[in-house]
Parts: sequence; C-alpha cells; structure tokens
Amino acid sequence: MSDAGPPDRRRVLSLRTSRMEALSDGIFAIASTLLVLDLAVPAVQPDVAQRLVDQWPIYLAYLVSFATIGQAWLGHSVITEYLDRADSILLRLNLVLLFFVSVLPFPTHMLAAYFSSENAERIAVTVYGLNLLAINGFTSVLWHYAVGEHLVSQDRSDADLRALTSKLDPSLISYAVVIGIGLVVPKIAVALYLLIALFVIIPFRAVARLVRRGTRS
Amino acid sequence: MSDAGPPDRRRVLSLRTSRMEALSDGIFAIASTLLVLDLAVPAVQPDVAQRLVDQWPIYLAYLVSFATIGQAWLGHSVITEYLDRADSILLRLNLVLLFFVSVLPFPTHMLAAYFSSENAERIAVTVYGLNLLAINGFTSVLWHYAVGEHLVSQDRSDADLRALTSKLDPSLISYAVVIGIGLVVPKIAVALYLLIALFVIIPFRAVARLVRRGTRS
Amino acid sequence: MSDAGPPDRRRVLSLRTSRMEALSDGIFAIASTLLVLDLAVPAVQPDVAQRLVDQWPIYLAYLVSFATIGQAWLGHSVITEYLDRADSILLRLNLVLLFFVSVLPFPTHMLAAYFSSENAERIAVTVYGLNLLAINGFTSVLWHYAVGEHLVSQDRSDADLRALTSKLDPSLISYAVVIGIGLVVPKIAVALYLLIALFVIIPFRAVARLVRRGTRS
Amino acid sequence: MSDAGPPDRRRVLSLRTSRMEALSDGIFAIASTLLVLDLAVPAVQPDVAQRLVDQWPIYLAYLVSFATIGQAWLGHSVITEYLDRADSILLRLNLVLLFFVSVLPFPTHMLAAYFSSENAERIAVTVYGLNLLAINGFTSVLWHYAVGEHLVSQDRSDADLRALTSKLDPSLISYAVVIGIGLVVPKIAVALYLLIALFVIIPFRAVARLVRRGTRS
Repeated sequence: MSDAGPPDRRRVLSLRTSRMEALSDGIFAIASTLLVLDLAVPAVQPDVAQRLVDQWPIYLAYLVSFATIGQAWLGHSVITEYLDRADSILLRLNLVLLFFVSVLPFPTHMLAAYFSSENAERIAVTVYGLNLLAINGFTSVLWHYAVGEHLVSQDRSDADLRALTSKLDPSLISYAVVIGIGLVVPKIAVALYLLIALFVIIPFRAVARLVRRGTRS
Repeated sequence: MSDAGPPDRRRVLSLRTSRMEALSDGIFAIASTLLVLDLAVPAVQPDVAQRLVDQWPIYLAYLVSFATIGQAWLGHSVITEYLDRADSILLRLNLVLLFFVSVLPFPTHMLAAYFSSENAERIAVTVYGLNLLAINGFTSVLWHYAVGEHLVSQDRSDADLRALTSKLDPSLISYAVVIGIGLVVPKIAVALYLLIALFVIIPFRAVARLVRRGTRS
Repeated sequence: MSDAGPPDRRRVLSLRTSRMEALSDGIFAIASTLLVLDLAVPAVQPDVAQRLVDQWPIYLAYLVSFATIGQAWLGHSVITEYLDRADSILLRLNLVLLFFVSVLPFPTHMLAAYFSSENAERIAVTVYGLNLLAINGFTSVLWHYAVGEHLVSQDRSDADLRALTSKLDPSLISYAVVIGIGLVVPKIAVALYLLIALFVIIPFRAVARLVRRGTRS
Repeated sequence: MSDAGPPDRRRVLSLRTSRMEALSDGIFAIASTLLVLDLAVPAVQPDVAQRLVDQWPIYLAYLVSFATIGQAWLGHSVITEYLDRADSILLRLNLVLLFFVSVLPFPTHMLAAYFSSENAERIAVTVYGLNLLAINGFTSVLWHYAVGEHLVSQDRSDADLRALTSKLDPSLISYAVVIGIGLVVPKIAVALYLLIALFVIIPFRAVARLVRRGTRS
C-alpha cells in the first residue's frame, strides 16, 4: 500500500484515540437520550391510560432508535479497541459518522409522527433507512481506512482483522432491499427495522445461558 | 461454571471497559440533568412566589429522579470497578440497562404531572415503579453475568464478590410490594420512593461524622 | 482522627476516581450548555435587531450561569487532582454537589425572566444565591471529607493541603451578605454575582502577560 | 521567556489535562447535537414532502454548525495532544473557548430562521461570523499560552511547535473579510461559511485514496 505524504509529516499528526472516543461516546449518549423529550405526557383526563397506550408509535420509535444507536456504538467500540493511533483523516471520517448519528433523532421523530398516514410514512421510512445506511456505511469506511493506513494495533493477527471486516462490512444490498420494500409497503420496513433492532439489542444467547444456569443451580 | 464457546473466540471479543464506562456516564449524566427543562418558570404576576411554591410536585419528582439515577450509577460504578474485561454480551446487557435509565425522565414527568388526580397518579406510580424494577433488575443481571463469565478481576476474593452480590441483588419482593401498594394508595408509594431516594442520596454517616469532628475541634 | 468501621470493610469500598470524574464532567458540561435552549430567536420583523438587543437579560443570565458552573468545575477539578481514591460516602457527597449543579439552570432561567419586576427579581436573586451557596458549600464539604478520611494522595505536603483548604472554603459570610443585599436591592446583588462571575472566568493575569509579551516582541 | 510567579506556587497548580479534555468533549458533543431539536417535523399533510424540502435552510444550518464545531474540536484535540500539564490559567482560557462553543447553536438557529429576510439575515450572518472568529481566536490564544508557559511535552521539537502554530493561528484577516462581505451580501457569506465547513469536514484526500485503492484491487 502506497502512503501519500512524507513519513515525518505523518508522525506529527499521529494522535491518541482517547479524545476521539470521548467525543464519540458523548454524541452517542446524547443522540440516544434526547428522544426521551419526545415522549409527551398527555393532560389529565378520564381516559389518560388510553391516551398513553395510543402513543405507542412514539415508544416504538424510541426503542428502535435507541437500539440502532446502540448497535452503531457496539461496532464503533470494537473498531477503537483495535486502533493503536489515529490520524487527522480518521478523526474527520469519524466526524462524518458522528454527524449521521447525531441526526438520527430527526427521522426517528418522523417515523413516530407519520405512523398514521401511509404517504408520509413512506417518506419517513425511506429517510430513516438512508440514515441507517449512512451510519453503517461510514462505520465500514472508518474500519477500512484504519486497516489500510496501518493504524490498528500490531499484535492483532490478520485473521482477527478479516473476522472483524466481515462483521462490520455493511450488508449494503440487504439495506437497499429494505429501503426498496419501504417504498412499497412502509409498515413492513418498520417491522423489519424493529426486528433488526430487537435482534441487536437483546442478547439472546446471554438470556438462554442465564436461564440454563438458573435451572441447574 | 461451564463456559460456552471455544476459548479463542472469546479472546477476540475481549474488550476494555473504558468505552462502556464512558457511554454509561454520558447517559447517566444526561438522564439526570434533562429533567431540569421541566422546571417551568411561571410568568411574572403578583403571586409569583405562591406559583413557584405550588409547583412543588415537579421539584419533588426531580429530586426523586436524580436520587434514583444516582443510586443506579453508584451500583454501576462498583460493578465496573470489579470488572477486568468486557465481552460483547456484557456490552449489550449494559445497553439494555442504559435504555431503562435513559427512559426514566418520562415516568418521572408523569409523576409530576399526575399528582393532583388519583387515577392518573396510580398509572404514573406503577410505571415509575416498573422502571425502577427494570433498572435494579438489569444491574443485578449485569453483575451475575460478569461473575459467571469470569470477567471480574482475579485479585478479588470470593468473599468480596459474595458481599457485592448480596448488596446488588434487587430486593425484588420489596419492589413488588411497593408497586402493589401504589395500585391501592398511590400517595404512600410516592412517599416510599422518596424515602428510598433520600436514604440513598444523603450520606447520613458522613454527616454524623463531620458533625462529631466539628464539635470535637 | 478516628475512623469508623473496620479497616477491611473500607478496603472493599475503595474505588478509582475515574467514573466519579466522568459523571461530574458530563453533568457540568450539560448544565452549562442546556441554557442555550433558552436563547430564543425572535420572529422576523422590521425591528428584529432591537428585539435581539432587548433580550440582553437572557444573555447576561447565560453568561453568569456559565461562569458560575465554570468556577465550580475549576474547584472540583483541583480536588480530584489531589484525590488518590474514593469511597462510597465521597461518591454520594459528590452526587449531592452534582444535584445542585444540575439544578442551576432553573434559578438562572428565573433571573432572566424576572428582570423587569422588582418583586419577582428579589425571589429569583435569593434562590440563585442559595443555589450558589449550596454548590460552594458542598464543594468544601467534599474536600474536608477527602482530607479527613485520608483519601488524598500521599505525596501532597500538609502545606499544599492547607493552601487548597483556605482557597476552597466558602466565604459563607460574604455569600450570606450578598443574599441579604439581594433581599433589599436585587439589582445590586445581580451586579455582584456578575462581577464575581467575570472575575472568575476572565484570566486577567494571562491577558496582561500576553499583552506584555506581545508589546516586547 | 520570563515566567511570572515563584516556581513553587506553579508546581501546586500543575494539573493533569484529563478533566479539561473530558469537560471539553462533553461540551463539544452537546453543542453539536442539541441543534437536532430544531429540526421540526411538519404535521401530516398532502404536501408533506414539499414541506420537508422547504425546510432546507434548517438542514443547511445544522450541517454548517456541526462542521464548524467539528473543526474547532479537531484543533482542540491537536493542542491537548501536545500538552503535558495544565495550569489554572489554561483551564480558564479553555472555559472562555468553551463558552463560545456552547453558544454557537444560538447564531446557527438565527441563520436558519432569518434566511428569507435579507435584513435579518445580515444580522444573523454577522453574529455567526463573530462567534466563529471568537472560537478560532481563543483556540489560538490557548495554544500560544501553552507554548509560552512551557506546558507542552518536552519531546516535541521546535519545528513541530512552529508547524502547529502556523496551522492554528487564525487567519483573522480572512475572517474579517468574510464578515465584511456578509454586511453587504449576506448570502455570499453563508456560501463561504458552507464552503469552509464542507472543506473541513470532508476528508477529500481519504476519499481519493480509497477510490484509488478500490480501482486497483
């Protein structure tokens, strides 16, 4: 791999990863918590319980969004675990990724607000899907750049790197398919995003293991 | 305890705990501070002092919520103090816990808004109790998983681990009792949650010690 | 100094200070940034410039609040710099301090909203002063507890500790005086809080030094 | 360079940079994420897609603001990378810088709201430019102070320091020029700020390198 720029210039720009991690954790934390401000408390009325239940698309959107940001954070954590040093281009690629993370509350809000109208929902589901695609795509770009520029720790074997690459590489085709489905039947795309979210955030294997352990002891 | 999965697979996924701690601290900090946005400033009027005093349920809800998140943070801090490494399942269990932390401002808001209507208050108190139960339950699950998977530091004695287990294990029965009380007399459950919150956040022993020291010197 | 509790029990509870620092930095950061949401943008009108200028009490309140939280953060940073370890009581004293930091946006908001009415302003200035008193008082309590329980680093000389004590100890009398002044002439108390804030946040000596250096070279 | 103050006094005040970094990352993260709350979701209507497209000045303002805060964060990261220790004056200079970062959402909001009226836009563009000038100016002050007080790491060569100085020193004249242009033709200044923002946040060289690598393999 050919490196652009003289070696001494690159040494100057070699940076610790701690601040990149701290800014990222801050933005992931805020983006995943801000949406709680959308959970409106209906005024006191005889049928307040019904009103609370009727708000279910907002709760669902909050859950999907939290799980999605959680999944993006998991991938990002694993990348920084492997990183040895950062350079200024990696920091900027990371800023682009963080931009799409910080903006996710907007399409999530649309998803909740446009649940009742099929036409508006089509728009919301498509914008939401494109945002997910951008988050996953830039996570992958970040990783490829780090590997290509030899920014990952030397003790990692090539097999480790390849294993992570195959995990992080976005299944761009499957995302494109879900975005396409959303253009025709928005509700099915919502259900698919929910399934992906639940699949990611619930550690099924851990639950199964704890249950097994509980029944044995 | 039998470990599932081959050892080499687990080595790849072994992670530092620093990012898990940073994301958690960010979400704990935001969830405990966001509610200040609910403290409305009444318009200037002759009886503005009275209006400010009349808002006391909102102040109370803010205090209870801050104390509750503070207590959850204390338990979480002690767990990460013992943790040596994390694996991807621990990170996901932590995300589930953080979900319930990030959502707490919503039932707290309900608690403040529904204070005057007994029927609505019953709903708010019950949802609030279930949220507390989830936070404490998942903190306990996190700890049991970490101990079961040998993720805690090797220098900790078994006595230390058992001591922490007996402290963190949620008194699920007592929570169920308070939730049950709330269904019948919501105001008493509010008082009990306040007592628990004050008991947790005020370091009585430290105050007593400082007073003793002050009177001696 | 007599220590309550058996020594082995205290060893178990000895904790790193990193998470206490991270939660504190998160809450300080959010409390000082959230108020920007109060800076309302007036609707487009012929006299929009005048409208923006008329909002000056809100800008002033934002500045005072930011400077006050900044000053509290400076004191807190110096304390954690000296800390070697934390115990669970210190963490709880810190949570009480953070409670008063997180709540400061509320009286700051009152300060901005009640600027035009002397009666309402008296209330706002008094609540603001009490909040400042609580922040400074608990910062001092935190430090006295840490020194009393030998939680500070062993390499610090007694002279260092005494120097910091004399700096951090709140001038409770002077605060009481400003709160008293605020009850009689609120505007003067606002001016005094502003003077304190400007004095704290502007590093006069650094500015003077840079000017001197600039004129020499 | 002559150092004011006796050396022993300065030793007492010498501080780690970790808390200064954590507070800064928190404020950068919040300031860059808070604006997502301004992205309003229009009510469901037949022409909801058109309404969403009509909001483009808000999206543009969000993008410019995120990129601007990202650029400021990049400069700040590089400075703290070089820092060895901090003193209390550096912490205060940093607080002044953070003040201007935390306030940026306000002029950004003005930029979005006043896009349709040339007179109001002139005000917004000027305030925005002055805020950018303050952020870049204080970043430069921070660096000059750190170098002047020998707070940077000893292993850095003088050539390294000079290289960073020439990068961080704000092109004050060019900013003054853009602010001046904004007074005459606000729209051109907006376009210039957008160009600067895009130039900073998009890592053109990385994109080009990845494309080259992709076409070769």
